[in-house]
Amino acid sequence: MTASTQIRLAARPVGEPQDSDFETTTEELPGLADGQVLLRTLYLSLDPYMRGRMSDAKSYAEPVPIGGAMVGATVCEVVESRSERRAVGDVVLAYTGWQTYAVADARATRRLDPEVAPVQTALGVLGMPGFTAYAGLLEIGRPQPGETVVVAAATGPVGSAVGQIARIKGARAVGIAGGEEKTRALIEDFGFDAAVDHRAPDFEEQLAAATPDGVDVYFENVGGPVGAAVVRRLNKLARMPVCGLVADYNATEVPAGPDRLPGFMGRVLRLSLTVRGFIQDEFVPTHHEAFLREMGAWVAEGRVRYREDVVDGLENAPEAFRGLLTGRNFGKLIIKVAP
Amino acid sequence: MTASTQIRLAARPVGEPQDSDFETTTEELPGLADGQVLLRTLYLSLDPYMRGRMSDAKSYAEPVPIGGAMVGATVCEVVESRSERRAVGDVVLAYTGWQTYAVADARATRRLDPEVAPVQTALGVLGMPGFTAYAGLLEIGRPQPGETVVVAAATGPVGSAVGQIARIKGARAVGIAGGEEKTRALIEDFGFDAAVDHRAPDFEEQLAAATPDGVDVYFENVGGPVGAAVVRRLNKLARMPVCGLVADYNATEVPAGPDRLPGFMGRVLRLSLTVRGFIQDEFVPTHHEAFLREMGAWVAEGRVRYREDVVDGLENAPEAFRGLLTGRNFGKLIIKVAP
Repeated sequence: MTASTQIRLAARPVGEPQDSDFETTTEELPGLADGQVLLRTLYLSLDPYMRGRMSDAKSYAEPVPIGGAMVGATVCEVVESRSERRAVGDVVLAYTGWQTYAVADARATRRLDPEVAPVQTALGVLGMPGFTAYAGLLEIGRPQPGETVVVAAATGPVGSAVGQIARIKGARAVGIAGGEEKTRALIEDFGFDAAVDHRAPDFEEQLAAATPDGVDVYFENVGGPVGAAVVRRLNKLARMPVCGLVADYNATEVPAGPDRLPGFMGRVLRLSLTVRGFIQDEFVPTHHEAFLREMGAWVAEGRVRYREDVVDGLENAPEAFRGLLTGRNFGKLIIKVAP
Repeated sequence: MTASTQIRLAARPVGEPQDSDFETTTEELPGLADGQVLLRTLYLSLDPYMRGRMSDAKSYAEPVPIGGAMVGATVCEVVESRSERRAVGDVVLAYTGWQTYAVADARATRRLDPEVAPVQTALGVLGMPGFTAYAGLLEIGRPQPGETVVVAAATGPVGSAVGQIARIKGARAVGIAGGEEKTRALIEDFGFDAAVDHRAPDFEEQLAAATPDGVDVYFENVGGPVGAAVVRRLNKLARMPVCGLVADYNATEVPAGPDRLPGFMGRVLRLSLTVRGFIQDEFVPTHHEAFLREMGAWVAEGRVRYREDVVDGLENAPEAFRGLLTGRNFGKLIIKVAP
């Protein structure tokens, strides 16, 4: 018998998740059935979408039930196998959530080759966040050479990939991040053409200076006042892939007026804008193979770089997750679960 | 010398256009230069976009200058010609605005064949409104067989074409209009599958009953509370071509709260919506030939029907235009200019 330490959803958060919204338990895992594997979690991915799963508002995915383990992508080692597909010692991508061990169907795992790339990149640049950037930018944003692409949360795993892919496609990449350290990293580490600090008092002036020809693609993953400022700079026929609105995720009430919706729709009409929400799943059948091939090559060649923010210990996941929702992390947030 | 009676923009309207925002003048037209024709206006088209041209807010087209003739599409007879392209007696589509006579370049006119369809249809079902419906629905809305398409202002020239083309493509068409007479016409004259009265106290219940499977395409041409109600019924991956927001055109101030924009964007994200503003010009190079061929055939076969609301006399254009902005017309609004 193997004991697994789990972090469960204890209560649906109101606003920012509190410690009391989580509970830690240990449970004995059942023995393996045919086709199953026992997995030891090496790395757990923390991502903004998890805030949505904690809520029971209607969404594209079922909420985590109260008392259920928090969900999430993981990189695991196979420690026991009753499947011919996976051998003990294999490292796999799985979706086993916030726990130290789990039983899973072997078919629900994907084997990772540590020779190709560090295994935890399957949670970031070569995983869901990287694919979100790739599919959303190329399929919805469709940046053309010479156009201006803007993305916020730009040192994060989605934003940094958006900027670098935009540049590979010949566009000008403008990143928005909070604070001097992050904006410097945008230029020096990720090769953005310009960086804008949304915490600076002259944020809007910085944004205008960084986008002298307006904005052709705004890859929206934050919403809030930052999103509103970029929307005001959109050009005719601009495209706006919408994959996240993290600034609003902790909102607890309908925001006060004025009502900006009529103004926004008027802009959509006058500028012939395309606003398109998406979840990366939609594009897996059509784009995932190309993503693994192209993005894998770009990472191997150093044309797409990535940054990880690794936090030690599953017990620190709730605090790290709160930080993710307010921009305190710096790079792809990963919990190193196994010691 | 020919004298032309013109209606000019006297002042930029605040809210609903007033009589004092227009002025009527008569001016002598200059003689023809080579390549020009003298046109006698038979019919003038009145369309909601003209409200935008009266304002100097940034838009996709230049505003009418103060003191300039109101713009608009017209069907005219050639009464004098200095071009080999057009003969006296030809009936042409032109863009000569609110006036009884005009001088135009022959190349800026398109000859109409009265044998093919009544010439004034070039202002409606076979003109800009019909093309707006055709291109926006087929290129952005992309209705699939069995899907539900909703359009408001549905007895108007755009809305009635949207519904009928949706049905030709195998979709279920739901029309929204104001009052019992119009909703009855939706079913009896235009063949919509269901009709909803936006003036009825139980409008939202009617809409829900008419869209039991939700809404896959909302062709947005009105905005306001009607638009908001349809948006709440959108399905996952729904498409929303936005070609007009007539409910907001007379708005004079930023609407009071609550701010509905974050909620709208959250819906775009969770439901993977496509919201796409457009002006029909964008699709002329790619779709106009197919439109004239297909729509011409559908009209000839009686598969697409149209309704006209013809008002006699140029002097009645301002009052008729006000009615257009508040839904008092019933069908494509046309001013019969020549007696």
